[in-house]
Amino acid sequence: MDIVCLDLEGVLVPEIWINVAKKTGIAELRLTTRDISDYDKLMKGRIEILKAHGLTLSDIQDVIATIEPLEGALDFLNGLRSMAQVLILSDTFTEFAQPLMKQLLWPTLWCNDLVISSEGMIEDYRMRLHDGKYHAVKALKSLNFRTFAAGDSYNDLAMIEEADAGCLFRPPQGIVASHPHLKSTTTYEEFSLVIEEFLHR
Amino acid sequence: MDIVCLDLEGVLVPEIWINVAKKTGIAELRLTTRDISDYDKLMKGRIEILKAHGLTLSDIQDVIATIEPLEGALDFLNGLRSMAQVLILSDTFTEFAQPLMKQLLWPTLWCNDLVISSEGMIEDYRMRLHDGKYHAVKALKSLNFRTFAAGDSYNDLAMIEEADAGCLFRPPQGIVASHPHLKSTTTYEEFSLVIEEFLHR
Repeated sequence: MDIVCLDLEGVLVPEIWINVAKKTGIAELRLTTRDISDYDKLMKGRIEILKAHGLTLSDIQDVIATIEPLEGALDFLNGLRSMAQVLILSDTFTEFAQPLMKQLLWPTLWCNDLVISSEGMIEDYRMRLHDGKYHAVKALKSLNFRTFAAGDSYNDLAMIEEADAGCLFRPPQGIVASHPHLKSTTTYEEFSLVIEEFLHR
Repeated sequence: MDIVCLDLEGVLVPEIWINVAKKTGIAELRLTTRDISDYDKLMKGRIEILKAHGLTLSDIQDVIATIEPLEGALDFLNGLRSMAQVLILSDTFTEFAQPLMKQLLWPTLWCNDLVISSEGMIEDYRMRLHDGKYHAVKALKSLNFRTFAAGDSYNDLAMIEEADAGCLFRPPQGIVASHPHLKSTTTYEEFSLVIEEFLHR
């Protein structure tokens, strides 16, 4: 039995934080791991910024609900779900992803959780696992799944290398250069063909 | 992060083989593990019967496509998928489940595969794993998911006992009697309440 593991942001939907920054007009929310390499420091900073602006989880979810999946993503995903089992593996948080998952017709998502206060403020976050994507693929293989993994970022490389097969989708040039053995795709048509080739192998 | 593992047949859709027997008029296909306890013997027998009647996979899929999910199952599942991650864990085969998964809007399904000849005949079957449901829940727990599992049959008991919480849905009296410590539910409303109670815990 085959299972396809897909990254979320950059593969099916735009980067969530960058869009939240744009839509709320809070420029500091544009900072990513490229600017602050310590993820814990970055997330705690984001939570402080939201608090300072009095933004609740529900406010942020309203903003995220106005973000749309990437053009063609829904058709691509619907087609894939009729051919194989699909899991979305992401480092984001369920509560943020939810408005986008609804638009994608509720594919199964494995990610992390936020800690919400009784007033609806984001208090903290809870990582389910370090290197969650990699460990997910490893666990799926131990359950005798044939695995395919795809993503666009540095945090996808370990799962792609661990999977039985995989590819990149619209990766930055740096990754293409440092990982020339990984197939890189740009359109959903190309992406589908690489996955179908694996499914029929 | 919470994940809800559901059995398929008897929980979301009717028993597939019994309905195939009814709709094709082939009475021998009614035999289940209650009649032939050796699963391998039972499945090989079913494959022989289909061959003897010249039925291809596609013929059987057409029959299965006329089976409908249980009354209320789609609303129950849609509601659940908006609240938590859901996996369907089943001992059936992808190729049989597919027409039903389509009607259930493609939830993620972990099960087994058939071996199909180039003429479209069912030649054999491939079990992914012995005790697949139990091992799936165990793997999910090792990935730090909080797990809830539910089903109606003997082959669901190991996953229900292994999960952090669980319940039965419309089980036979024998299971209720032998497993009095497991909560048993009959309507989707009751079933949802037990799951929501777990999700809010």
